[in-house]
Amino acid sequence: MHRTRVRVVEDALDANNTIARANRDDFDRAGVTVINFMSAPGAGKTTLLERALPGLQGIRAGVLEGDVQGSLDADRLAGLHVPVTQLNTDNGFGGECHLDANMVRSALPELPLAELDLLVVENVGNLVCPAEFRIGEDARVMVSSVTEGEDKPLKYPLMFRACDLVLINKIDLLEHLDFDLDRFLYHLDAVHPGVPRMLLSARTGEGMEAWREWLVEAVSRTAAPA
Amino acid sequence: MHRTRVRVVEDALDANNTIARANRDDFDRAGVTVINFMSAPGAGKTTLLERALPGLQGIRAGVLEGDVQGSLDADRLAGLHVPVTQLNTDNGFGGECHLDANMVRSALPELPLAELDLLVVENVGNLVCPAEFRIGEDARVMVSSVTEGEDKPLKYPLMFRACDLVLINKIDLLEHLDFDLDRFLYHLDAVHPGVPRMLLSARTGEGMEAWREWLVEAVSRTAAPA
Repeated sequence: MHRTRVRVVEDALDANNTIARANRDDFDRAGVTVINFMSAPGAGKTTLLERALPGLQGIRAGVLEGDVQGSLDADRLAGLHVPVTQLNTDNGFGGECHLDANMVRSALPELPLAELDLLVVENVGNLVCPAEFRIGEDARVMVSSVTEGEDKPLKYPLMFRACDLVLINKIDLLEHLDFDLDRFLYHLDAVHPGVPRMLLSARTGEGMEAWREWLVEAVSRTAAPA
Repeated sequence: MHRTRVRVVEDALDANNTIARANRDDFDRAGVTVINFMSAPGAGKTTLLERALPGLQGIRAGVLEGDVQGSLDADRLAGLHVPVTQLNTDNGFGGECHLDANMVRSALPELPLAELDLLVVENVGNLVCPAEFRIGEDARVMVSSVTEGEDKPLKYPLMFRACDLVLINKIDLLEHLDFDLDRFLYHLDAVHPGVPRMLLSARTGEGMEAWREWLVEAVSRTAAPA
């Protein structure tokens, strides 16, 4: 039975990759850089977008907001005057704990791709399954909050290994926590040696300029001429 | 395609419930009270067990430690001198993001049920899927850290609704956060009116006595005579 289950999972991932490539072709044609943005629940993804997106001079950004249900984060982001599209996994997708390429594909008709340079896909808050499903993205960024503890890279290695950038958030709380940053970085390098990382506080603004610069560079690196 | 997916999910949940009932019969025969312990990654489940289990006078407690991979939490708990059994979902279960009844059943031969009054099953850190799978437990307890934000009951209603007790952890950090506790409780009552809740800090010890008392009462309420 376990072997059957593993085979079913592998077939599902093959199908996902095929659809992810089709998404990728559509994004490339439109000249849109796509970021798959992932974290555990409550690590601060939405706040980091609220802080970063308004400061991206000359870049037309949009957000695809993934949630099991509801539109709380999309409502928060609506105030930024960037296009926000809601994608709920309990709406025909069985309440899945992650986004996959097919779900993102179902949202493409709602996305104003021709008017965007950057699309951030905010995934469902989860450190396990989102890492397994490519959606056609150019880069994967994850947020790890220092309140979650130093052991997270070792406990969720697939997620930390899948990422092109790790944002270490809520560092304003470091002085109030028993969190050993060196130990976290040591664990991070054990599972993904040398992965780019930034120390951030959405609350104090520390590190936000570097995060914006990373997004600008990602767009200039990957976007095709319109 | 979506309708097929929903039907597959429903069949899987039916099969899960059948196995959960078999687990439950085994736990009842052994007179063991079983707690399904759930939270997002890094909310503090393991620390709350480290603090609570040694103080349970006269109760023989054990832990079934669920992780995708590794045994970090089991290693931490080993120092408590309670039986700890590791259950990894990437070991024949496809790296699943939750425990289900079948995984727990596979671990039963390793568990010293005859020597236990209380078994705490620490689920994989995840606010979505663990809530969907009964494992044969007597009660479900979840931990929500105040660092995760006030909106979590609204974003993950199934988890908050599935629980018999909500532990609101890390309240020592409240003064350093923009977290409105009243608003969190309002959201909690919106999705699960009147669910028992406790304010805790594993760091300062606040609320730990009430948490231990709840565990003692759960054992006296549900355990059959040996």
